[in-house]
Amino acid sequence: MKQSAASALIDDQFVDPAVYHGGALAAARLQFPDAPTPWLDLSTGINPNPYPGTVISPDVLTRLPDAVALTRLLSAAAGAYGAKDAQHIVAAAGTQALIQYLPKLFSARRVAILGFGYQEYPALWRAAGADVIVTDDVKSLTETGIDVAIVVNPNNPDGRVVDPQTLADIATRLGRRGGLLIVDEAFMDVLRPAASLVPILPGRGALVLRSFGKAYGLAGLRLGFAVGGLDLTEKLRTALGPWAVSGPAIEIGATALADTAWLEQSVERLERQAAHLDVMLIDAGFSIVGGTPLFRLARHERASHWFQKLGRFGILTRPFPERRDWLRFGLPGVETDWARLAEALHASP
Amino acid sequence: MKQSAASALIDDQFVDPAVYHGGALAAARLQFPDAPTPWLDLSTGINPNPYPGTVISPDVLTRLPDAVALTRLLSAAAGAYGAKDAQHIVAAAGTQALIQYLPKLFSARRVAILGFGYQEYPALWRAAGADVIVTDDVKSLTETGIDVAIVVNPNNPDGRVVDPQTLADIATRLGRRGGLLIVDEAFMDVLRPAASLVPILPGRGALVLRSFGKAYGLAGLRLGFAVGGLDLTEKLRTALGPWAVSGPAIEIGATALADTAWLEQSVERLERQAAHLDVMLIDAGFSIVGGTPLFRLARHERASHWFQKLGRFGILTRPFPERRDWLRFGLPGVETDWARLAEALHASP
Repeated sequence: MKQSAASALIDDQFVDPAVYHGGALAAARLQFPDAPTPWLDLSTGINPNPYPGTVISPDVLTRLPDAVALTRLLSAAAGAYGAKDAQHIVAAAGTQALIQYLPKLFSARRVAILGFGYQEYPALWRAAGADVIVTDDVKSLTETGIDVAIVVNPNNPDGRVVDPQTLADIATRLGRRGGLLIVDEAFMDVLRPAASLVPILPGRGALVLRSFGKAYGLAGLRLGFAVGGLDLTEKLRTALGPWAVSGPAIEIGATALADTAWLEQSVERLERQAAHLDVMLIDAGFSIVGGTPLFRLARHERASHWFQKLGRFGILTRPFPERRDWLRFGLPGVETDWARLAEALHASP
Repeated sequence: MKQSAASALIDDQFVDPAVYHGGALAAARLQFPDAPTPWLDLSTGINPNPYPGTVISPDVLTRLPDAVALTRLLSAAAGAYGAKDAQHIVAAAGTQALIQYLPKLFSARRVAILGFGYQEYPALWRAAGADVIVTDDVKSLTETGIDVAIVVNPNNPDGRVVDPQTLADIATRLGRRGGLLIVDEAFMDVLRPAASLVPILPGRGALVLRSFGKAYGLAGLRLGFAVGGLDLTEKLRTALGPWAVSGPAIEIGATALADTAWLEQSVERLERQAAHLDVMLIDAGFSIVGGTPLFRLARHERASHWFQKLGRFGILTRPFPERRDWLRFGLPGVETDWARLAEALHASP
């Protein structure tokens, strides 16, 4: 219920917190009531060219999700991510559902998060009573007293990549003392060269989260995975309980994750589009901080001003209250969306 | 991962535990390898004539679920269930997701469950460390020391109904001492006269669970609700986090829950079909213990034998290891399914 947040209007000095979370179009509509519609939502990192195979069998809606179909999904995920087998993977109704559960399943006194990144992590672990430090030094993740370390890889929003061997070493060190490294690979599908921890996953001390909806452009389906040692996946599977993933997510996910050709073509296209977006942003006076092929992080000393201006054009981007010179751009999809962004970027400030 | 359970063959003395949980067709296929296919699954209480409006807009799959659409769903649910407003309801990816969370959110030393009923409740609360008693006496629910009481209403499998005013009084008494009454109304949609606690819900001490998939025949969609005081719903909403429900579930659920005419016609049809099923079962030598219009609980001293026999006909019913003379039947859907059940019930034992 974001009604109170949505009713808080913004100006250059104050941005509604609800807008910082991707996809908060409802809040944006209230903040820019005169903006042209439909809104062009560039506030998320979701593939604007979704996986096309989304026909749903009637059975999938009417019946309880079947164990055989779920195993097919997990096997496809194991293949796509390079995991040992389906037993090392657990599926959830979106990665967020796993992120919500983790602080309830793994008790931690001290949590170290490689920042700056996704704000849900520090908030949830703090709410669970942990002492949370956000660090930009990988070495701090294994400091004495740290029970749980969290790395988003590649990082959102800046795209920083940590070498998977380094992460494997961290996981091994934490695992030895009963700790846990959580690696959120939400945007790993679109990264080349790949830098996933999954193929070299240590037997304990590491849990990798994979998001389905972002790279496959189907965020509304709600599908995410955790890959880890058998004790960790069993613990998560037990916590989530039966029928945690919907029939449509199982059916579409199993088909899409086995379709490696589509993903390869899609990533090539995203890379071209991301490069094109960089040129447009640089032309408008931004510098590129980083990102992934699904989003670009740009710097401009008047970034808040740009957020406002684009908002008035009906284009929602992602601002960062902690970094007021940053603005994150998702990729437009169809040609008219690209033209709309180009027009807004060219218009006088 | 039910592989070990699925590989355990059954005979009259031993029934695979996986078969006791509704929809375990995968296990049934292994247990009755020579049964005609497709299986007729009567092991669940899901409406065999599902809500017909299941066209999904492309946006609903590609975008993150929108706050405006979610509010529309919650408002439709409030109307359908008789709740005060959308703030008093929280949506989840199936009621099971809520059932899994409850023992993690509400600490309890002693839990009283009005039995005999859904086996997930005692198992989950015991796993959370609570001392669980299963009682058939409503008065025991408010005994000294009980923190959490659980009533499935109408009960599964026997259809026993507790008067909502009695439940309101129990909730008020528990609420006064910081306790909680959980009322699982998974099958309330099809009960006439209605006996829901929701319209007379006390401000604290009560949480009502409502299942969407059963009455609307869309169990694969994964949609369920909790109705309660604002502190309880806020606690659940925070635990579930953003985007807990898929776009398809939000869209179809909002439409279906507002379609009161469909539900009324559907319940009339279910009542006729349930009465017809009773006649068939009585003709075959069963007596009817109870049930709801979505399932019938029948007694036969050779119930395990009937489970086996129907299994060999490719018809899966629900046995109860604790009550070996009981067998629960969901409703067949199309005419050929009714004929198939009639044939199996008439065949010589």
